[in-house]
Amino acid sequence: MDLPYTRIKGGVCAAKGFLGSAVSCGIKNPDSDRLDLCLIYSDRQCQSAGMFTQNRVKAAPVRVSQSHLRAENARAIITNSGNANACTGPIGMQDAKNMAKETARLLGLRQREVVVGSTGVIGLPMPMMRIEPHYQNLIDGLDPKKGPNVAKAIITSDTHEKEFAISVKLGDQRIRIGGCAKGAGMINPNMATMLCYVTTDADISKKCLKKALEESVENTFNRITIDGDTSTNDSVILMANGAAKNKTIRWGTKDCQNFSHALQFVMNKLAKAIVRDGERVTKFVTLEVKGARNPSDAKKVAQAVANSALVKASWNGEDPNWGRLIHAVGYSGASIREELIDIYYDTKRACEGGLQSKTNPEVLRNIVNKPEFKITIDLGIGEATHRIYASDLSPEYVEFNRSEYAYWKQAKRDGLL
Amino acid sequence: MDLPYTRIKGGVCAAKGFLGSAVSCGIKNPDSDRLDLCLIYSDRQCQSAGMFTQNRVKAAPVRVSQSHLRAENARAIITNSGNANACTGPIGMQDAKNMAKETARLLGLRQREVVVGSTGVIGLPMPMMRIEPHYQNLIDGLDPKKGPNVAKAIITSDTHEKEFAISVKLGDQRIRIGGCAKGAGMINPNMATMLCYVTTDADISKKCLKKALEESVENTFNRITIDGDTSTNDSVILMANGAAKNKTIRWGTKDCQNFSHALQFVMNKLAKAIVRDGERVTKFVTLEVKGARNPSDAKKVAQAVANSALVKASWNGEDPNWGRLIHAVGYSGASIREELIDIYYDTKRACEGGLQSKTNPEVLRNIVNKPEFKITIDLGIGEATHRIYASDLSPEYVEFNRSEYAYWKQAKRDGLL
Repeated sequence: MDLPYTRIKGGVCAAKGFLGSAVSCGIKNPDSDRLDLCLIYSDRQCQSAGMFTQNRVKAAPVRVSQSHLRAENARAIITNSGNANACTGPIGMQDAKNMAKETARLLGLRQREVVVGSTGVIGLPMPMMRIEPHYQNLIDGLDPKKGPNVAKAIITSDTHEKEFAISVKLGDQRIRIGGCAKGAGMINPNMATMLCYVTTDADISKKCLKKALEESVENTFNRITIDGDTSTNDSVILMANGAAKNKTIRWGTKDCQNFSHALQFVMNKLAKAIVRDGERVTKFVTLEVKGARNPSDAKKVAQAVANSALVKASWNGEDPNWGRLIHAVGYSGASIREELIDIYYDTKRACEGGLQSKTNPEVLRNIVNKPEFKITIDLGIGEATHRIYASDLSPEYVEFNRSEYAYWKQAKRDGLL
Repeated sequence: MDLPYTRIKGGVCAAKGFLGSAVSCGIKNPDSDRLDLCLIYSDRQCQSAGMFTQNRVKAAPVRVSQSHLRAENARAIITNSGNANACTGPIGMQDAKNMAKETARLLGLRQREVVVGSTGVIGLPMPMMRIEPHYQNLIDGLDPKKGPNVAKAIITSDTHEKEFAISVKLGDQRIRIGGCAKGAGMINPNMATMLCYVTTDADISKKCLKKALEESVENTFNRITIDGDTSTNDSVILMANGAAKNKTIRWGTKDCQNFSHALQFVMNKLAKAIVRDGERVTKFVTLEVKGARNPSDAKKVAQAVANSALVKASWNGEDPNWGRLIHAVGYSGASIREELIDIYYDTKRACEGGLQSKTNPEVLRNIVNKPEFKITIDLGIGEATHRIYASDLSPEYVEFNRSEYAYWKQAKRDGLL
């Protein structure tokens, strides 16, 4: 039972004491004024927690941020878009450290109180000469109203910014939780290719904060897929600064549980927004697997189905093709009995006991025609369930992702190659 | 060291004593005369072996053929295209059994000497009323020159038939090995969505035949991928009838090894032809992983890279985007050290020690522009290798696979739904 959440404005700076700033440096495109460098800053000390990509090729900012978060609580996040600073070696590490160092120096923080995010092309050196002249502007621009600017500055191939914020009464006080995210491509359940920053003015123990973040990521960002590719830069950062002056929320209390639910509510909105705004996506599909022998099997089925190129093409084609769904169930590795499987599009049964149901295909087709629908796969042999939010695969997705060669040509013009 | 193989004509009926036949029943399309029912028959008893899909949802003909091959040696294969007879329940099982039974009756064989193949749409009842009137025609048409007709009759979305045959001197006699295959979509290393039939007139022991087939499948059909989807109908059948009157080839001999190599040579040609003719494929990529800690890691890397939508889109876009390759290496689950990874396009290094190499991107681009090229990923931490033949992913592949709804409409017109 969720508490009554009130939606509020302000995104990642909706919580008290958080300021944002964003500038355009020309990293995305030297000839455009798109925002591509931004800062989130708390005017007081924070508790913080982070979760990062499971890809073994980790971008420099991921390594730097992991190391900083182990040593200190973060109080500021600097992020650029347009270049992932991934596969950039010792120079890339130095670039990421310098971004933290310069930010810390100008804000009067310790270097380890600053974490770093980057998103964009992999394998190209960071155009630091574009970033360096802008540190001072960035800090001068800090403003509690600039959450939306930060949300704009972190996006890459996203078509629009994604932010969401709520206030909720916890115990004696009203607290705020707000965040922003970017996604679009390389999105897979092991934490989508994405950045997500969430702030709260709750006063909360480190342990409760960390557990709430882990639980929320598992139930939100680990439940979405666009193309099955896990990126090198995925980062979720959560900072809590206690500006709401509530009684400290401690691990194991009802308030801690309520905080976790509220965080999950915010992150779920952001995760779903990422799927809806996936690269050239036309369908938002809630895929529910039930009746599995165990949770691991339920997850295997959900992931196999949600990542099958042929399943996703059928969604794009508005074809209620349950044959493609069951074929992916079959190769998922889960224990199944074909003759017990039922498959539904919304509430209409397409497959009954492994066979074509009596439902008129036109009825099913009218469901797949909608921009959002639900598919339920009931394996019929157990009690375990798993839910994933997935997208279709469009010809336009492939077209869009054919080439990033223009970035290489730009890097060559910049003297970086 | 391969023996000198002589390429010969005749495809799956190139070996002595094998006859083929194919007719058009209107399963693919009632209004077309495309061949869609065919028969391969040996005029004498055979040793036989088969390997089938690892998908747990298995089509009726797969179950029937597995059971028949366990009980007897196959001497005939009846196959239809246009309907997979998958997810068709007890009626589908009866249909597949009836196809074997009628064929056996008319050929004077035991039912279990006939195996059955089907390929096409999943989930629709078999239009047996189209097949039944054609059994007699099929048998009347048997002819040793009709290998190519069989090759035509088994294809679905393939753009052309795939067949290959050789003769080779083994010990005292020249023997022949010939085969045909179909592929096109649902192609993944765990035995691509495909049918492959191979015949030989070698006199060979069951054990040698079986081992040679297992070894050949592992090195050929288990090394190709188009879309990463494993079908419900994959079947490879091998029949040896001894018509060459060679001294029986026994397990553990040099001749057995030579036979295995020759079989692999034929199956490799067919496997590569499947990739080249994948649905809307424009690139044939040989992906070589080396320097892995163990064979399992080498395979994980090869499969992750070859099945990444973003990697495949970059091949389609002729973009030498090694960043996408290394990101898939990172999430493959294999042990890696990013700073030791080298990546080559043909012989040109794109990535050196995890970083952009000094090679001019234009040189790399000229390689990816070609219809066929090789990518080598050297992990630099061990000795294990794995090779996969892969294709690109095109916008046209997705477009092509958007909908099979027309088949449902036809099934409704046929009164099957």
